[in-house]
Amino acid sequence: MSQESADDRSAGDLRNTGLSLKHDREWDYELDRIVEEVAERDAETVGLQFPEGLKRRGPAVADDLRELLPEDVTVMLSGQPCYGACDLDTYLMRRTDVFVHFGHSPMKESDKIIYVPLFSNVEVTPIVEQSMEELADPEDDPDVGLVTTAQHMNKFGEMREWLEDRGYEVHTRRGDDRLTHEGQVLGCNYASADVDADQILYVGGGKFHPLGLAMEHPEKKVIIADPVNNVVTVADTEKFMKQRYASVHKAMDADEWGVIFCTKIGQGRWDVAQEIVANNDDAYLITMDEVTPDRLTNFGLDAYVNTGCPRITTDDGPQFKKPMLTPGEYEIAVGNKPLDELSFDTFHGTW
Amino acid sequence: MSQESADDRSAGDLRNTGLSLKHDREWDYELDRIVEEVAERDAETVGLQFPEGLKRRGPAVADDLRELLPEDVTVMLSGQPCYGACDLDTYLMRRTDVFVHFGHSPMKESDKIIYVPLFSNVEVTPIVEQSMEELADPEDDPDVGLVTTAQHMNKFGEMREWLEDRGYEVHTRRGDDRLTHEGQVLGCNYASADVDADQILYVGGGKFHPLGLAMEHPEKKVIIADPVNNVVTVADTEKFMKQRYASVHKAMDADEWGVIFCTKIGQGRWDVAQEIVANNDDAYLITMDEVTPDRLTNFGLDAYVNTGCPRITTDDGPQFKKPMLTPGEYEIAVGNKPLDELSFDTFHGTW
Repeated sequence: MSQESADDRSAGDLRNTGLSLKHDREWDYELDRIVEEVAERDAETVGLQFPEGLKRRGPAVADDLRELLPEDVTVMLSGQPCYGACDLDTYLMRRTDVFVHFGHSPMKESDKIIYVPLFSNVEVTPIVEQSMEELADPEDDPDVGLVTTAQHMNKFGEMREWLEDRGYEVHTRRGDDRLTHEGQVLGCNYASADVDADQILYVGGGKFHPLGLAMEHPEKKVIIADPVNNVVTVADTEKFMKQRYASVHKAMDADEWGVIFCTKIGQGRWDVAQEIVANNDDAYLITMDEVTPDRLTNFGLDAYVNTGCPRITTDDGPQFKKPMLTPGEYEIAVGNKPLDELSFDTFHGTW
Repeated sequence: MSQESADDRSAGDLRNTGLSLKHDREWDYELDRIVEEVAERDAETVGLQFPEGLKRRGPAVADDLRELLPEDVTVMLSGQPCYGACDLDTYLMRRTDVFVHFGHSPMKESDKIIYVPLFSNVEVTPIVEQSMEELADPEDDPDVGLVTTAQHMNKFGEMREWLEDRGYEVHTRRGDDRLTHEGQVLGCNYASADVDADQILYVGGGKFHPLGLAMEHPEKKVIIADPVNNVVTVADTEKFMKQRYASVHKAMDADEWGVIFCTKIGQGRWDVAQEIVANNDDAYLITMDEVTPDRLTNFGLDAYVNTGCPRITTDDGPQFKKPMLTPGEYEIAVGNKPLDELSFDTFHGTW
């Protein structure tokens, strides 16, 4: 298959690939483990939290659970938006005897939470093979970093082995506390790609993760092997970077700043928010969980700094009526740092 | 001024009236009371919560407060949506030493919360005088119920006196625990209009409150004396009632129901939600704070029952892609009650 530019398409030939499996995929919801925990804790209430893309499965999972559980156990579904393990429904967690978080790996272990990761059943070796179109020949440059998302972690060994068999030296690491697995990336944390290789192979669905990876590591070539859409591309951050520079430039004229402290359990950077406000008389500390254009519009300030999820700033930024910057970009906009220090905002540690 | 139908216009002659004052209105933010509390509690953090329409004033109020407070006190603004005293930002409340809720009267007193009601400075007697166009002649029917919102409570005595001087017998009561004042109405509670009079005079801005009042008391004539828009009209609930009947009819075909339990401190009806789920195997309990079309769409169910704020159901209902009913309407849709028992959903008690 010929290579078009990365942005020209998002999907390749979809016969017999991930996407055809996508909609009738069978996930393992680990119901037995949940039922066991309910019995062990003599639980009366069970809370289930799904990420946005899987919320539609919630009622059926609740049905299956109710079949297995004693009749007096109440099963509840979280209706809060959920975008990661950083984003637990703490209200539901605190008010249910058993709380299950589906679709993400643990950011921090807790007796209170059952994490059900929901591993993908899509095959990865065909797309890893196809990625050799973009990887350097192992005789020229054998070093390759390998990363994936929690969803494909079950096939990580397989990916590594395939590459090693072709003569690559595969570099991996577990980034930091925020990550559960070696080689795992999050939308806000690419420490696992901090390896001694000029090329990083990302194996996983979509461009959300690899675009962050390429912004965080602009010196590396980031190859996207997407087994769900069956396509290999090279991450191209140009559009995003232009938007970031444009936002910083616009924000340079701001008189009054809103400084957002995000109240989601894994998205709070209190010290960062507090420090900005302490040093700028025209900055106002605003607390919220969901950071949305509507909520900010009501305050009518000139620009915003988002100390919460970096991806809301970079990916949703253009939807906001006023410039919204990362903490690092803010320092540039107010003149504390030069423009060439603009870099991707990442999130470390847990809570 | 001649009377057109209630829906034809929302404003009358605006010279020298409330609306001209609306935008340069001086509110009393009771900063001295806040400063005193900060000193008394040796507070290090102050949280401020404004309703949506006043959020824009937040930064200026924060500025004024910072001028008056010791330099090491951190002032924070709640960025959560806020639609009433039922809707406290409990996150901010629990994490600040002094928490101020502006624009609503106390639903429940607490040492933790300073309520600053923000009384309107608009004159009410001119519009009460004008309302006589719609009130019965006191010689024919002297009985009139009088209600207003927290914002105009400071002029309640004046309204009453004016009516009594004209020969009316003014009936008032304090509805229940949910209300702070005699004669006060909320968007979800009209118990203060449960008086021995066939006509109720509502004095206040907008139609939100009197439309609820007219739905709750369909046997009474509800006269709206709006001192902000300088217009007297009679509440007309026809459009709303048609929408309610249409939603109930559509929901009659639903197989699967989402039952929303609202997690906002003053909007939870756990027993109501729990009872529906216990008696319907095809009903799923969903917990959330903000009840929005997007959040429900993700679940893909056929219809929803909202046990939270009744006004989201009646006023925002048409924005939701699937029918959303009040608990009473649900009983009709599933056949437990006849259609003629359709009534407005109200909320009683505190939390």
